[in-house]
Amino acid sequence: MPVEMELRRIIISEIHEQQVIILKELDGDRSFSIQIGIFEATSIDRKIKKIPSPRPLTHDLLCQTIHSLGGELQEIQITQLKEKTYFATLKIGQNGRVVEVDCRPSDAIALAVTMDVPIFVFEDVLNQINEEI
Amino acid sequence: MPVEMELRRIIISEIHEQQVIILKELDGDRSFSIQIGIFEATSIDRKIKKIPSPRPLTHDLLCQTIHSLGGELQEIQITQLKEKTYFATLKIGQNGRVVEVDCRPSDAIALAVTMDVPIFVFEDVLNQINEEI
Repeated sequence: MPVEMELRRIIISEIHEQQVIILKELDGDRSFSIQIGIFEATSIDRKIKKIPSPRPLTHDLLCQTIHSLGGELQEIQITQLKEKTYFATLKIGQNGRVVEVDCRPSDAIALAVTMDVPIFVFEDVLNQINEEI
Repeated sequence: MPVEMELRRIIISEIHEQQVIILKELDGDRSFSIQIGIFEATSIDRKIKKIPSPRPLTHDLLCQTIHSLGGELQEIQITQLKEKTYFATLKIGQNGRVVEVDCRPSDAIALAVTMDVPIFVFEDVLNQINEEI
């Protein structure tokens, strides 16, 4: 069963290249962090703070493109953790079917925050993190 | 009539925040430069140099999403220059119709380079640049 989580924190450091986002279980206490790039972190941060942009940024363009092609983002899922790399999937509804697109968690979370859809993490991923700690 | 142009150069500076791309007319000598952000410049540069990425980057994800939703990028157009800001459009074919999506030239060019489709610039834009020089 995928577990619904929420974006709890973004830690943006100007010193390090890798930034950190923290996801926390909605109906529980489990949480974990994912390292992401500065571009994606900034994009997520802008969305949360609702900082407007005069022109559509890349994640806005992705949302607009999904919409223009008759799709609707339903949820994002973090599905796997393999050799310290997280894998994510966009679930997009289109004409009654669900299209899945493989992506990085940072892009998925930027889209989830922009389009206000739920973030799910597979139980396997959460178990694996706990084993590694 | 839109004029077909090609990406002639990318100038990436680590000192300045704004990077520069230069477009040149395919069947002529007109050329002009556009300032873009470092993220988009790096993305375009990686595409041109065919530097592989272990995970789909944001522009790859955009290409994959268009494809998964039954779309095909046909061309990109730089359509307007207004108060020193360029405007671009993606032209995406889907089920026999053409869908247009408004975007920044940097995203449009990153997609054009990734999906190997033509870059068109409206004659009006070229005229305006020549007047301003």
